[in-house]
Amino acid sequence: MKLWGGRFAKDTSRLVEEFTASIPFDQRLYRYDIAGSIAHCRMLAKQQILSSEEAETICAGLHEILGEIEGGRLQFCLDLEDIHLTIEARLQEKIGDLAGKLHTARSRNDQIALDLCLYLREAIADSVERLIGLQKAILDLAKKHCDVILPGYTHLQRAQPVLLPHHLLAYFEMFQRDIARLQDCYQRTDVLPLGSGALAGVPYPIDRESLAQELHFASISRNSIDAVSDRDFVIEYLAAASLSMMHLSRLAEDLILWSSSEFGFIELDDAYCTGSSIMPQKKNPDVAELVRAKTSRLYGHLVAMLVVLKALPLSYNRDLQEDKEALFDTVDTLLSCLAIFSPLLQTMKIRATRMRTAAEADFSLATDIADYLVRQGLPFRQAHEVVGKMVSWCLANGRTFADMTIEDYRRFSPLFAEDVYQITVETAVAARDCPGGTAPRRVGEAIEADEERLNQNAAWLQKVKQDIILPLIFRPHQT
Amino acid sequence: MKLWGGRFAKDTSRLVEEFTASIPFDQRLYRYDIAGSIAHCRMLAKQQILSSEEAETICAGLHEILGEIEGGRLQFCLDLEDIHLTIEARLQEKIGDLAGKLHTARSRNDQIALDLCLYLREAIADSVERLIGLQKAILDLAKKHCDVILPGYTHLQRAQPVLLPHHLLAYFEMFQRDIARLQDCYQRTDVLPLGSGALAGVPYPIDRESLAQELHFASISRNSIDAVSDRDFVIEYLAAASLSMMHLSRLAEDLILWSSSEFGFIELDDAYCTGSSIMPQKKNPDVAELVRAKTSRLYGHLVAMLVVLKALPLSYNRDLQEDKEALFDTVDTLLSCLAIFSPLLQTMKIRATRMRTAAEADFSLATDIADYLVRQGLPFRQAHEVVGKMVSWCLANGRTFADMTIEDYRRFSPLFAEDVYQITVETAVAARDCPGGTAPRRVGEAIEADEERLNQNAAWLQKVKQDIILPLIFRPHQT
Amino acid sequence: MKLWGGRFAKDTSRLVEEFTASIPFDQRLYRYDIAGSIAHCRMLAKQQILSSEEAETICAGLHEILGEIEGGRLQFCLDLEDIHLTIEARLQEKIGDLAGKLHTARSRNDQIALDLCLYLREAIADSVERLIGLQKAILDLAKKHCDVILPGYTHLQRAQPVLLPHHLLAYFEMFQRDIARLQDCYQRTDVLPLGSGALAGVPYPIDRESLAQELHFASISRNSIDAVSDRDFVIEYLAAASLSMMHLSRLAEDLILWSSSEFGFIELDDAYCTGSSIMPQKKNPDVAELVRAKTSRLYGHLVAMLVVLKALPLSYNRDLQEDKEALFDTVDTLLSCLAIFSPLLQTMKIRATRMRTAAEADFSLATDIADYLVRQGLPFRQAHEVVGKMVSWCLANGRTFADMTIEDYRRFSPLFAEDVYQITVETAVAARDCPGGTAPRRVGEAIEADEERLNQNAAWLQKVKQDIILPLIFRPHQT
Amino acid sequence: MKLWGGRFAKDTSRLVEEFTASIPFDQRLYRYDIAGSIAHCRMLAKQQILSSEEAETICAGLHEILGEIEGGRLQFCLDLEDIHLTIEARLQEKIGDLAGKLHTARSRNDQIALDLCLYLREAIADSVERLIGLQKAILDLAKKHCDVILPGYTHLQRAQPVLLPHHLLAYFEMFQRDIARLQDCYQRTDVLPLGSGALAGVPYPIDRESLAQELHFASISRNSIDAVSDRDFVIEYLAAASLSMMHLSRLAEDLILWSSSEFGFIELDDAYCTGSSIMPQKKNPDVAELVRAKTSRLYGHLVAMLVVLKALPLSYNRDLQEDKEALFDTVDTLLSCLAIFSPLLQTMKIRATRMRTAAEADFSLATDIADYLVRQGLPFRQAHEVVGKMVSWCLANGRTFADMTIEDYRRFSPLFAEDVYQITVETAVAARDCPGGTAPRRVGEAIEADEERLNQNAAWLQKVKQDIILPLIFRPHQT
Repeated sequence: MKLWGGRFAKDTSRLVEEFTASIPFDQRLYRYDIAGSIAHCRMLAKQQILSSEEAETICAGLHEILGEIEGGRLQFCLDLEDIHLTIEARLQEKIGDLAGKLHTARSRNDQIALDLCLYLREAIADSVERLIGLQKAILDLAKKHCDVILPGYTHLQRAQPVLLPHHLLAYFEMFQRDIARLQDCYQRTDVLPLGSGALAGVPYPIDRESLAQELHFASISRNSIDAVSDRDFVIEYLAAASLSMMHLSRLAEDLILWSSSEFGFIELDDAYCTGSSIMPQKKNPDVAELVRAKTSRLYGHLVAMLVVLKALPLSYNRDLQEDKEALFDTVDTLLSCLAIFSPLLQTMKIRATRMRTAAEADFSLATDIADYLVRQGLPFRQAHEVVGKMVSWCLANGRTFADMTIEDYRRFSPLFAEDVYQITVETAVAARDCPGGTAPRRVGEAIEADEERLNQNAAWLQKVKQDIILPLIFRPHQT
Repeated sequence: MKLWGGRFAKDTSRLVEEFTASIPFDQRLYRYDIAGSIAHCRMLAKQQILSSEEAETICAGLHEILGEIEGGRLQFCLDLEDIHLTIEARLQEKIGDLAGKLHTARSRNDQIALDLCLYLREAIADSVERLIGLQKAILDLAKKHCDVILPGYTHLQRAQPVLLPHHLLAYFEMFQRDIARLQDCYQRTDVLPLGSGALAGVPYPIDRESLAQELHFASISRNSIDAVSDRDFVIEYLAAASLSMMHLSRLAEDLILWSSSEFGFIELDDAYCTGSSIMPQKKNPDVAELVRAKTSRLYGHLVAMLVVLKALPLSYNRDLQEDKEALFDTVDTLLSCLAIFSPLLQTMKIRATRMRTAAEADFSLATDIADYLVRQGLPFRQAHEVVGKMVSWCLANGRTFADMTIEDYRRFSPLFAEDVYQITVETAVAARDCPGGTAPRRVGEAIEADEERLNQNAAWLQKVKQDIILPLIFRPHQT
Repeated sequence: MKLWGGRFAKDTSRLVEEFTASIPFDQRLYRYDIAGSIAHCRMLAKQQILSSEEAETICAGLHEILGEIEGGRLQFCLDLEDIHLTIEARLQEKIGDLAGKLHTARSRNDQIALDLCLYLREAIADSVERLIGLQKAILDLAKKHCDVILPGYTHLQRAQPVLLPHHLLAYFEMFQRDIARLQDCYQRTDVLPLGSGALAGVPYPIDRESLAQELHFASISRNSIDAVSDRDFVIEYLAAASLSMMHLSRLAEDLILWSSSEFGFIELDDAYCTGSSIMPQKKNPDVAELVRAKTSRLYGHLVAMLVVLKALPLSYNRDLQEDKEALFDTVDTLLSCLAIFSPLLQTMKIRATRMRTAAEADFSLATDIADYLVRQGLPFRQAHEVVGKMVSWCLANGRTFADMTIEDYRRFSPLFAEDVYQITVETAVAARDCPGGTAPRRVGEAIEADEERLNQNAAWLQKVKQDIILPLIFRPHQT
Repeated sequence: MKLWGGRFAKDTSRLVEEFTASIPFDQRLYRYDIAGSIAHCRMLAKQQILSSEEAETICAGLHEILGEIEGGRLQFCLDLEDIHLTIEARLQEKIGDLAGKLHTARSRNDQIALDLCLYLREAIADSVERLIGLQKAILDLAKKHCDVILPGYTHLQRAQPVLLPHHLLAYFEMFQRDIARLQDCYQRTDVLPLGSGALAGVPYPIDRESLAQELHFASISRNSIDAVSDRDFVIEYLAAASLSMMHLSRLAEDLILWSSSEFGFIELDDAYCTGSSIMPQKKNPDVAELVRAKTSRLYGHLVAMLVVLKALPLSYNRDLQEDKEALFDTVDTLLSCLAIFSPLLQTMKIRATRMRTAAEADFSLATDIADYLVRQGLPFRQAHEVVGKMVSWCLANGRTFADMTIEDYRRFSPLFAEDVYQITVETAVAARDCPGGTAPRRVGEAIEADEERLNQNAAWLQKVKQDIILPLIFRPHQT
């Protein structure tokens, strides 16, 4: 019979057991569940709701079960539904009816909310760790190729020459915002829901603050109905993860373009590409393609969770069970994508000459020539038009700016003098010397500032990691 | 070394192998992959691209591998990437270098497209089968409770009395449209892509029509680049499945509402509900809630696949590998949700008295009373206003229509006579006697027509099932 | 007072009027609404529910209102909520209380369903018309550049040479499937919902079949509850439109890549590009970029509508009002994107030499060389490996296949002979001579077949257009 | 000719103008655009890039244009594309070629990013203001009905009695998290992008810090490529708004259920409902239904924007233009939904007796009876089973707990004594006296704490409002 089966006249249909069981995926939460139970049990003893002998027996049993699960010695069965009942039933086998006291002042509704918070705190920390790793890889690459110039693009058309490190550090910024978002999300996840009962609170003199302290939560939830109905923290993580993957997908796209024959800006390492079953010459940027595609997967999970929650009346509804697979897959996917991008970047070859040649071709210096005219006093809009006409003339006559004689120039504007030939990709890059610009001086400053930001990120992570170390709870309790 | 590793100087990084391998999920396609290979191999022999001895050896090897997989005797390894290379590598172990001839005139790009089409044809047939089963359960329920009256709702407010079978058959209609959509999708899936090679076709005198015949495809793809780039059939199925789940979610919502204490229209069977770990009295409609929630999951998968395909340049890109998990999970989810709803409906108790009482309460007959006035010659809009004022008066005075004296009625309109009291939920229901209306005669006709539609659905399914029976291909070939 | 205000003690809050009114967007449906009303009115007369004088007066009034709206002489006010009440109120001003008879045997619930079906039939026809136009543009382009060779790509890496028309016709296939899907959707939209009343049918002896005939519907809805609750046809259109835009987005991506300096395969016409406010040289493929982006917009609308419908209890709920803006914007967006792509393709310049040069560079003939070895008897897998090693050697030694001496070749395999030099992009293309392949003969056949399919598409459109011509209803009725 | 038309040989196609123009929707940004231009112009003068006379002339012209737009005297034309060129062109008409100097050291790419940031800062403040308003309405309602008891629900089944204010304050929590998320989003929006140029920075000695100060930005963007490519702030807002609407949709669902005849817990005010065109008795909760539905609309916009950004190569692409309509509609929708919910709540009638009756019916006290047994020493799990069997027996025998004699109780457990009858909905509610629980004392504390939180929210808003007051910039500059 089910642990909740008292009022039922019939056994649950096998079909229903299979359909409703979450144990195939929520078993993954066993460590959080046991940690939560140990903390709960100790608190019950502290509050004299359980005797300390009872609490010790229960905790010892839970420790054993932890060992069994980690050793692969506990079989998960569908008819025990979920990780909570699985562990309680096993505890019953071990210590008998006393096991039934563990669920005093607790419901699965607040228990699963707790498990998820514990899990997600760790997942956020892991996500930040990988983001930091990727930021580091980007920064290393930027430093290594600090004077490489490539065309900057808008609309996938060559626009203005930029430094490669400047282009790379744009991604550093994106990942920095991702980290900030995850930090904010962490704060809203770091709230203890346990003690909310099924929905209304519990009729026992429990001490939620001490529970929070034991499990290193910064605060406790303030409304029991909200606490069991809420999955904001899950959705907020999914949204942050989606943004992060979106950034990765843009980097992936850059890499895919750059490793095409047409661009030829980089060469990915053989160890990070795969081949074709039929075309012997192929070397494909599969990793980047898959990361691009997996972005969609995270979007799908975000949509799914938003839709699950829409228009759900309060409080807990079984619909909430659908939160787990989407969340787990999002965490796994994001972590693996972040992990693989660091070595992908570290091992790829930069083809600096191809980049530079491309930057010099076409008319990437057109804006600089317009700015030249502005410095001679022409309003920008008129200068723009003059250079536009020059481009048009060059195209019609198979010329480039470099091919134009000074007379050619002067036909378009008398303001041109010989020094117009001094405009090069180097001067163009160096000229953009405002904060955030691509001038080497500014990029150098950015690299320094980013080193410092990396340190701050690492410091935050260090601090958080101390809060989420569950093993603490598994040590024998000091009284 | 990889089967495609000739041009590579380094081994693939283990991280990349793990990241890119599809074998953890595409192993599920083994039967389709082997069937496709056998058909391909026989065709190569028929076209004298292979000798018939070679073909026989290869086919025999493939048969053995099929047995090994079905017997759980083949280990799947990440470094063999996918089901195609796994089978080819195993074949090589069995029959040596001859195995290398199987991939003649074929690429993994057209091979996986074939596998997916074969898989999806079956999945569509299975989906239709379950939909038919659910339609049958609905029809049975409608017949069993053919004279039960309940309030029809708009805006979740009681609107007009309707027959329960009429309400139920609304779902029959929805599932009928779902079947039609799946049939259309089947047609567009029933197109053989094999023979498209990597993207450009193959330089061998293959016979695609005979391949199509052998694998029971209605037609062959017409453009090789399209054939390897296309996943329309997957998305179309995901969209059809999403609509189908949306319909299920509406039925689920009705059941959840109806089994609340407030409605009390049905009682779900104990075997189809679960209880609470903390509240002993609870009996929850978990199955309906989960179906409602899983709708979101399908929406998520649909979004994911649409996004994967967006803006992918031609032809094949590795992004397409992301099609499988979303598709498999959609098929599994839809099938299990459809499967569980039939017994859920069959075992639930209809509380006809509660339904009828609710239908009589409030002012559900207001429209009929307005129509009464219309029959006395009042324009509908004025009749509506008269009855609106009556409702307002009743509410203010704690009355119902039944409590009103004929004088009360006449204060609102002199057109009322004694026969206004003859308006009842029965007459209201019976009056709606146009095609599609809730009158018992019309509902009876609908039930008959739906029986016939069920037969047609079954006939289509019967026919399709003959086309998709893969085991045929596994029999020794008749020559 | 509202037309439905009889039972209300207070006026609707102005805030609520603004919030709930649909007239700002559903005014667009006026033609369909009036056509439906005229047909309804005539049917009521035919069934002697109205006298023929009454019907004539009403119809004449509706005709006048049509004229007023088309002439911009009718002011739409929020307090009349929607197009239905707006027209009825105006009718009342014109013909007095008789106007109130128009709503006999009808509800806004079946009325709006009708309006939407009428609108969508036309929108589907328009969509198909634009798709045909685009197919024609593609086919013309294919014919015009029938012998241009470019590299076919997989993973954005050059894979095998293909004919440009072959590449283009891949899109013809996609749009052909889109048309087929829209045709299927048309069938499911071509069902008359009118006569379903609020939800239960109507208590008047109406003739729904004659309504269907008058409005050219192929059939009538079979269940009144379903008819007022259903928006499947909207969602099915949104899904079909999303797929169609997805195809456009892939074409857009190809064009964006091809018009980059790096590819340089095409040059878009000046009239179809825009420039930069700051960079004088820029000529950007904005149209293609916007089409790519607008795909997302359609995805968003599809998601929105799926979510609106999820878990809505039967029957009509006000949520359904949210269907219109998403649908209208989808139709407008799809039509404008389809419309602009035809001239974009027609005016762009094909740079055939750049394409061909790219096709010859790198190792696009590698598969053909492997196939050469296969023809000498080597199993494909071994041939693949031999050529892979050749590629690797060439890369290391700065060679191409063309640079290799026959001795070089023979170091990799003794099977090579002088005729290996006869493998060119032309032979490679010509060799793929199976149905659906890129060989000129096959592409020629495809072009012919596609001309025929264009004709069939046009024939379908022609037929449908006769059914949806609303003006018919606006002519004085023949009796 | 276009302002950027120098290099173009042909006029832009009219079709393209219509297709690409953003002026129909971005005109809404005029105030932000002009404010940004004035700040930019003053900075250029301060840096001596313009003379102060030039700057004054330009600023005066911009002020005039502001007046023209606000007075409805400026016509927006498609061929001027967007708000930026519209204003520049008008300036040119006013002050001649000097207008062309305004675009010095600026591109539309950083200009539009600035406009959006300015707009979004205001939109966030407005959103928070409305959320605070709604929180206040909720808190007022909670205080007004502080002792009303209703059934708390899980799975839409009655679970345990709770205080109505406790249920209401669950929503206070949700909106509090929404505010916190918006505050975080504000911080990431409060970063000045201007000075990033087209993508690479600008070659003029501009002072970005002074720009930031003038426009009250907390910081400046650090990487120009990122600054023009980034729309994280838009997506983050869309995600926060989606969560907020999700919360509203849950409240809407509660209201819809509660105002059904079956629940009958509330009665919405006549001024906040609408009626039916056909059913005279109907009074529908349309506002709540529409809010529920509009949630989907926001989800759709979020999806659309995530998809737009996916896999976009750096830096600016025209795709980004699609950000505006989704954002504007999200802001408008969220604001109007938040605005209408406050009076909806304030005017609705609470039917306390119906709530209380429902709380007492069924077996909502079952958990309390189990807890009673626990206090007698029975492990919770066994107590749960005892009470489950009691429920089962009551159902079979048509009893409630109140109907059971003490002998009946004792047949299930000898631990029961007369004091079991002292368990009532009041004691049940009062017993849940832990932080966050539903006990009156705890709810009272929550109300107090929430007042304080309201004050903090208001203080934040007050502060932010001072930063976003654009009119400041429109005052003549103090030098």
